[in-house]
Amino acid sequence: MSENKKTRTLTDSSDAGISRRRFLSRTATGAAGAAVFHKTLADVPQTDPTKQQGVPPTALGERSPFEKPERKVISNILSTTPLQDLYGTITPSDLHFERHHGGIPLIDPDNYKLIIHGMVERPLKFSLDDLKRFPAITQSCFIECSGNNGEYYLADRKNTPQSLRGLTSQSEWTGVKLSTLFREARINSNATWFLAEGNDAAVMTRSIPVAKAWDDAMIAYAQNGEPLRPAQGYPVRLLLPGWEGNISIKWLRRLELGKQPFMTREETSKYSEPLPDGRIRQFSFEMEANSVITSPAYPEKIEPGWLEIRGLAWSGSGKIVKVEVSTDAGQNWSVAELQGPVLVKSHTRFRYLWNWQGKPAVIMSRAMDQTGYIQPTHEALRDKRGLGAPYHLNTIVGWDIRPDGSVYFDVKSWV
Amino acid sequence: MSENKKTRTLTDSSDAGISRRRFLSRTATGAAGAAVFHKTLADVPQTDPTKQQGVPPTALGERSPFEKPERKVISNILSTTPLQDLYGTITPSDLHFERHHGGIPLIDPDNYKLIIHGMVERPLKFSLDDLKRFPAITQSCFIECSGNNGEYYLADRKNTPQSLRGLTSQSEWTGVKLSTLFREARINSNATWFLAEGNDAAVMTRSIPVAKAWDDAMIAYAQNGEPLRPAQGYPVRLLLPGWEGNISIKWLRRLELGKQPFMTREETSKYSEPLPDGRIRQFSFEMEANSVITSPAYPEKIEPGWLEIRGLAWSGSGKIVKVEVSTDAGQNWSVAELQGPVLVKSHTRFRYLWNWQGKPAVIMSRAMDQTGYIQPTHEALRDKRGLGAPYHLNTIVGWDIRPDGSVYFDVKSWV
Repeated sequence: MSENKKTRTLTDSSDAGISRRRFLSRTATGAAGAAVFHKTLADVPQTDPTKQQGVPPTALGERSPFEKPERKVISNILSTTPLQDLYGTITPSDLHFERHHGGIPLIDPDNYKLIIHGMVERPLKFSLDDLKRFPAITQSCFIECSGNNGEYYLADRKNTPQSLRGLTSQSEWTGVKLSTLFREARINSNATWFLAEGNDAAVMTRSIPVAKAWDDAMIAYAQNGEPLRPAQGYPVRLLLPGWEGNISIKWLRRLELGKQPFMTREETSKYSEPLPDGRIRQFSFEMEANSVITSPAYPEKIEPGWLEIRGLAWSGSGKIVKVEVSTDAGQNWSVAELQGPVLVKSHTRFRYLWNWQGKPAVIMSRAMDQTGYIQPTHEALRDKRGLGAPYHLNTIVGWDIRPDGSVYFDVKSWV
Repeated sequence: MSENKKTRTLTDSSDAGISRRRFLSRTATGAAGAAVFHKTLADVPQTDPTKQQGVPPTALGERSPFEKPERKVISNILSTTPLQDLYGTITPSDLHFERHHGGIPLIDPDNYKLIIHGMVERPLKFSLDDLKRFPAITQSCFIECSGNNGEYYLADRKNTPQSLRGLTSQSEWTGVKLSTLFREARINSNATWFLAEGNDAAVMTRSIPVAKAWDDAMIAYAQNGEPLRPAQGYPVRLLLPGWEGNISIKWLRRLELGKQPFMTREETSKYSEPLPDGRIRQFSFEMEANSVITSPAYPEKIEPGWLEIRGLAWSGSGKIVKVEVSTDAGQNWSVAELQGPVLVKSHTRFRYLWNWQGKPAVIMSRAMDQTGYIQPTHEALRDKRGLGAPYHLNTIVGWDIRPDGSVYFDVKSWV
């Protein structure tokens, strides 16, 4: 707020247009010393900022012209979050990874409907306004693609944190508890599964145990304080915290209650994993504990001396309780420090102070979650589960530090 | 991740360009049934989204064309957050309110320096990279302008939540503890105050007790997961959680340790409050508990029946422990439900289920924080503190509901 009479006159909203025009015309005729607001930051000369007016407010704030974060577009259906450029727990909504099966649809919120039917006493149809009338809940959590393993790049020493693990992002989500809607529809007591269906070109569908609704499933309509972004399901998505991303159906239009899985294409031909004994692991919902060192990492170059090894850890089973770091390719491990906040099913930062003495080294991280589960080596996972599908490959990965300080992905950690 | 051989070929990054061109040329020659990705959401026809491809990924995600949130630009130095359009606790960074005294400066992060000097054993100069090498902390909190009271509009029944209280916003901030830097500079034990100075056209300066550094003061370089936005102090700001916004100096360039306040213009001519007995309340740092009902509010129109009265409460003294709602202009009060997360010095949502029966009503909210402090009426604040300055006027405000369901600001609550 302006505080004195003079400023108050200048900034009164009804006069502001006139004052500004006068101001600018004075400048145009070359009045000496007249201070002007520059229109955009790109217009501001790079001289002493205390010697010139800056930029006035705008309807939407821009990023600094010195900051140009970007998702990497991998294909028509995939883009990755620049994990190495982020801080704290939140992923800015315009940098949330994207994975879809038929492109991002355009949905008019005024025509939006969510149907709940099947084994229910009272089939229901909700508009977006209907959904917003229910008591809201807000929860931060990550969403991770089950294929978050840099499958296409693993042989490449020029992997980055983004190319290895950029299919996970974190948001603060707001919506309605799914249990609230299931109570409203009076679902049958013997309904144990439900189908969720998206309103996109792929009509993405998955089967989900009803138990998840009584736990923490949410019908989300907001992300990081504002309506969902289209790439994350605008206007409404299902959100199943901790579970593989594709099951948190975006552009949600239908929930059908039943008593067994619906065996959709996305859970038979895909999103299941063959095991070494020939059987198939199906409905592998939970994303296992995982971690990645975000610095030092390719393409950084480091100097000898003290530095913090920093990274992200997360688990679909609850909180991260411990992260360990190795600087000798996994022979010895030391406990890293966790940087708060440490939230359930959330990206959790860790750091480990290390004195690099200029010798070759391979640095690695491994996460442990509140269930006691520890992120496995690639070898251990391969022996136990096989590598028949590119899903749930949450194995320990490393960075190879060369004597000149250059850092490359440790291809050997993926053999 | 793509899962089968066919998709893998289509989406391989090196082939994607060719595949796409072929795809598009087929379409241009009218090949029946060829599915194409539309370029932007605005290009997608508003027909059944399951019958056409959507939009492919992009480097930065856009908002839905149906959502156009905006700050309101009040003057060359002021814009307000659209509180009524937000969800959860986070304010999207491009909607964070702005208040500056000389416009937003352009600062090259490679030339950035922070100096700590005065009563210190070891004067220091930090680059941005230097600051980022220290252990980081992450904390969510609101920042509120001390003049967050709709001063110019209070006589107007067409006030909105944004015009009344839109000078508060919440972010997840990341940076270094100020105490870490003060230890590094070995500040003298008898240094009790420090000056913080900004690198903007106003060279904004304020005096701060050193005790705040040992409490929760932070040197912040990130906001909601990414570098600060220019309007919030890029590349580095001081952050004093819970204290009036102007003292969290943006574009921070200098900290000088001393043994008394520096008596800058911004704490003598401004940002102090005359009391009824003729004395001046100075260094009124902490933002007192406050609240606003965000719905129903002008310009909403409501229907008789059950609805949730919803709003935001916050306090610079810690957590919100209780919010009460009145539907009879403050005669009777009922306890509202708090919507988690309830964080220290943070926007906290509340709701109260109400059956409006079509009669005139004035609805109000009042917040209580963990110190037991209760948001006062305008009358009580006026009697105790006077209204000599437009700062820290955290009084209870109301909405006037007319029999036809229209809702206006209750001008009477501000008399």
